[in-house]
Amino acid sequence: MPYPINQPEVLAEVQAVFARYEDALVNNKVDVLDELFWDSPHTLRYGATENLYGYAQIKAFRAARPSQGLQRRLLRTEITTYGSDFATANVEFQREGSARTGRQSQTWLRTPAGWRVVAAHVSLLD
Amino acid sequence: MPYPINQPEVLAEVQAVFARYEDALVNNKVDVLDELFWDSPHTLRYGATENLYGYAQIKAFRAARPSQGLQRRLLRTEITTYGSDFATANVEFQREGSARTGRQSQTWLRTPAGWRVVAAHVSLLD
Repeated sequence: MPYPINQPEVLAEVQAVFARYEDALVNNKVDVLDELFWDSPHTLRYGATENLYGYAQIKAFRAARPSQGLQRRLLRTEITTYGSDFATANVEFQREGSARTGRQSQTWLRTPAGWRVVAAHVSLLD
Repeated sequence: MPYPINQPEVLAEVQAVFARYEDALVNNKVDVLDELFWDSPHTLRYGATENLYGYAQIKAFRAARPSQGLQRRLLRTEITTYGSDFATANVEFQREGSARTGRQSQTWLRTPAGWRVVAAHVSLLD
């Protein structure tokens, strides 16, 4: 591979920004969620119940979503970095009171402003 | 952005390999599907009904899945390239006889052997 996988310093960076994202998600820190998605018309997010195209749609969704019941438990986390500027973060999670396992996939890119999610997909196992 | 987005020659490459993957998927060309996933323990695929970790699990799943009923129609396709070696491919799709919209997300990486999927997530909208 021309891109070294999981270089410790890069992996540590992505683990830190992923942890920041997770904290923002469960505590509904909408400004942080907005900050960590790439501000681009190319950014997209497939959610459990909606498909959002472009940063503007994602931001509007964050602003409108309920702020309760966001707590969840991470069952398994897999973060992989490719070279110094790209990463994927995939987790299985469970919400309180739900029997279904959720999956969250993110592709991260290092931008001049910092690490950003360029694409995300969240779903519940059938 | 230090990484130019959707450079025409890179985008054309990923569109071509994505089309090859789609053809292999609907026609159950298992060897091509196997070829186009990165042969690594880090590769993962969240499917509609299963979570697969590592190339070996993905390959075993391909070998075991039914070869009928794989046809689908792509409703929307969004491919984005970041620099020369990274890409995301996201599609909405519909299977014949199903009212639910499917979503497929892939992260692609250029390896010495060619473009490969390093992470994938497939789900049906609730």
